[in-house]
Amino acid sequence: MALDLSSLQGTADRYATKSPQEILGLALTEYSPSVGIAFSGAEDVVLIDMAVKLAVPFTVFCLDTGRLHPDTYQFIEKVRTHYGIVVDTVAPQADAVQRLVREKGLFSFYQDGHSECCGIRKVEPLTRALAPLGAWVTGQRKDQSPGTRAHVPVVQLDRTFSTPERPLVKFNPLSQWTSKQVWDYIETYDVPFNALHTRGFVSIGCEPCTRATTPNQHERAGRWWWEEATKKECGLHVGENTHDR
Amino acid sequence: MALDLSSLQGTADRYATKSPQEILGLALTEYSPSVGIAFSGAEDVVLIDMAVKLAVPFTVFCLDTGRLHPDTYQFIEKVRTHYGIVVDTVAPQADAVQRLVREKGLFSFYQDGHSECCGIRKVEPLTRALAPLGAWVTGQRKDQSPGTRAHVPVVQLDRTFSTPERPLVKFNPLSQWTSKQVWDYIETYDVPFNALHTRGFVSIGCEPCTRATTPNQHERAGRWWWEEATKKECGLHVGENTHDR
Amino acid sequence: MALDLSSLQGTADRYATKSPQEILGLALTEYSPSVGIAFSGAEDVVLIDMAVKLAVPFTVFCLDTGRLHPDTYQFIEKVRTHYGIVVDTVAPQADAVQRLVREKGLFSFYQDGHSECCGIRKVEPLTRALAPLGAWVTGQRKDQSPGTRAHVPVVQLDRTFSTPERPLVKFNPLSQWTSKQVWDYIETYDVPFNALHTRGFVSIGCEPCTRATTPNQHERAGRWWWEEATKKECGLHVGENTHDR
Amino acid sequence: MALDLSSLQGTADRYATKSPQEILGLALTEYSPSVGIAFSGAEDVVLIDMAVKLAVPFTVFCLDTGRLHPDTYQFIEKVRTHYGIVVDTVAPQADAVQRLVREKGLFSFYQDGHSECCGIRKVEPLTRALAPLGAWVTGQRKDQSPGTRAHVPVVQLDRTFSTPERPLVKFNPLSQWTSKQVWDYIETYDVPFNALHTRGFVSIGCEPCTRATTPNQHERAGRWWWEEATKKECGLHVGENTHDR
Repeated sequence: MALDLSSLQGTADRYATKSPQEILGLALTEYSPSVGIAFSGAEDVVLIDMAVKLAVPFTVFCLDTGRLHPDTYQFIEKVRTHYGIVVDTVAPQADAVQRLVREKGLFSFYQDGHSECCGIRKVEPLTRALAPLGAWVTGQRKDQSPGTRAHVPVVQLDRTFSTPERPLVKFNPLSQWTSKQVWDYIETYDVPFNALHTRGFVSIGCEPCTRATTPNQHERAGRWWWEEATKKECGLHVGENTHDR
Repeated sequence: MALDLSSLQGTADRYATKSPQEILGLALTEYSPSVGIAFSGAEDVVLIDMAVKLAVPFTVFCLDTGRLHPDTYQFIEKVRTHYGIVVDTVAPQADAVQRLVREKGLFSFYQDGHSECCGIRKVEPLTRALAPLGAWVTGQRKDQSPGTRAHVPVVQLDRTFSTPERPLVKFNPLSQWTSKQVWDYIETYDVPFNALHTRGFVSIGCEPCTRATTPNQHERAGRWWWEEATKKECGLHVGENTHDR
Repeated sequence: MALDLSSLQGTADRYATKSPQEILGLALTEYSPSVGIAFSGAEDVVLIDMAVKLAVPFTVFCLDTGRLHPDTYQFIEKVRTHYGIVVDTVAPQADAVQRLVREKGLFSFYQDGHSECCGIRKVEPLTRALAPLGAWVTGQRKDQSPGTRAHVPVVQLDRTFSTPERPLVKFNPLSQWTSKQVWDYIETYDVPFNALHTRGFVSIGCEPCTRATTPNQHERAGRWWWEEATKKECGLHVGENTHDR
Repeated sequence: MALDLSSLQGTADRYATKSPQEILGLALTEYSPSVGIAFSGAEDVVLIDMAVKLAVPFTVFCLDTGRLHPDTYQFIEKVRTHYGIVVDTVAPQADAVQRLVREKGLFSFYQDGHSECCGIRKVEPLTRALAPLGAWVTGQRKDQSPGTRAHVPVVQLDRTFSTPERPLVKFNPLSQWTSKQVWDYIETYDVPFNALHTRGFVSIGCEPCTRATTPNQHERAGRWWWEEATKKECGLHVGENTHDR
């Protein structure tokens, strides 16, 4: 199995108007069991709900940065027991965390930007999590971030995490959905959700780098709010979505 | 001064597409100083901000039900000191509150509906507050409640609180605005807002009868959620907006 | 019935070493049904638990100042339903509250002391609540306030609320108990308690005038903390306990 | 330098009635710079305050289990910047955490006890932190836990973490102090403290394994409350204090 990489753009175009379930179905059919759903502990839980219903083997992993909200740990556990699935967490390397904290303390991101901390707590662990996989599935949506996610194709070659020996395909089944569609799905199918979503949080990441937003404020205003709007990516999806390819 | 009541519908039609400031300006011009802005302690603070800038005498009153959130009392005080204005609070009659609590306890509304409690804590005090006025100004918007506020004219005869001897005109300057427009105004003009709005609350009323909503849920889902959607009014604006008149 | 007022000091001395239940029993036996337990919504709930077990008619009243914590309203309701008793609330007069707020706003006590607000929201309503009674029962303890409650007799003539025509006797059955004894009772008999007690609150009053304390800090540090320690009474027990009489 | 291990019991007896500063002074004098203060992010901050004033080189380390309260991370940072010191954090090994979570989820301790999780998140990292040291300093107090800490000597050979090649001495300068003395010190010297202490928390550890206590409840009731009282140690001080040796 596995998609023909040379015609990936065509596949993306063909699936652009299909449902998230169809796109997710393609990912699972082509790559199971070597496909992982990246679960952030937020509204991307709908991907897990959809995948469980497709009944094809898949793995789920979470980046456990060590700085998640207590509510997020509770929610990950709830998802694990609710669906009866294994949720792998990927923790940062002890050495790297210790070195950063020793040198700059526990909140250096407020001073010199979030990329160093995200590099240690998210990107390196993600690299490890993706190493054995042929494909991964994310909850990225175009409407999440006007600046950086305006061009999220439903499937793409992952240029950040592919290696010369091992191409990695990234699926974004929710790309075309709006936040409202995601939440309608959650309500309709009674999907469990993070309790933070009832306390004003829309987008959820690490505790110190996430905040509640006021009504009608764009969800991205709740992330890395002390930095410029154009830099609000953690390195997981960098440079992928700035052109439509 | 005072508007010609026989042509109120025509005035409403003529002002339907005007700005909130123009509608509020009409209210103040025609009725000052016998005009009161009903401030609920939520996003209707924009009316106060607009009125202050119009620099025509007006009064502001709040229904202090005795069951507001601590945050709301703090916010009312902040508005008072920020704008340097008098904010009148109207408290329920001690006897009536005591009788209700003695008979049914402090949370009877969860059992037999909110109208009895709202009657004592909101409607009767409002009647007292409106008695000396010729007109009042509310923050009602059409987009707040699909069921009960779909037809909120920008100005109308208040059929609930007018008396044969004393007609009362009600202005709804925000009628045509969306929640997003209100929040854009708050952000643009740096208007103080209730801290509950940063904790998931959109619509704010009494503490036991208000709850935070999840992202994209309609704001009215945060009010009297144990009752049917069609009954979600507290009696202040009952029966007024069901037809476009 | 009713105690001989001329020998009240002797009765106080005789009962000084008796249990709270015996002191409460004396109050109920001598004054039932014209005896009221003043329930503040805090750990004085033990008085209600003891009274219910004595099975003699009594009344319970709460001062509903209109500024209690949401948790306190929930707790009062829980006590009402748990014991199946009527809990009377006594609300302040609307006029007096409105006048104070109009003139000084909602937090004047932080500027010029809590006595004016307590006068309106606590003392006047208490006067009304006590008018029909021959005796009342409070949860005052000597260990609550070194300055003002060092000499709380178990029974005393209430010099503040007695009138020439109608003497009022005040019972303080918990006078000799320590905070620890009260909490041991609550744990032993599974008595419901205010959820604020699990969030660092020891002494509980109105929301703006109560705060959580740090471990080992005296509970009175959580009340009217912006005022001098010697003034920390709300007027309900003023001047009564400064001498041992 | 370094104490004569054969007469450690005598040293402990001789220092038993000395002040925490004298005991800490002994630790620093004998072992600086190879001495580390184990800072838990709670009231043991007084050790750091005392050490800074002694002006002898020392190190401070924290076990960053990855499950601390957000408030605790903020507090650790505050201590770091307030005193201008390096605070080393010691994180658990990624592999071990991932294995446990994969197999048993994120809250296995509620089912089969806290020792497995503490082993991975606290004991192993502590072993690494202690490896290069000749002595360490803890905030243990006799009054913290009647069952397990009744016999905490002020200095002792650490039988858990010493190796045949490398003896490790453990100092407990606060052993004889009560919680009240610790808090009096914090207030007197204006020492920064964890904000959780103002929300009902007395003893503070990992977030899922710590809870606020009610007034007068023993602080240990806030830790591993679902387990028997006799097991409430995390493995850092196991078996050390059960006999006075």
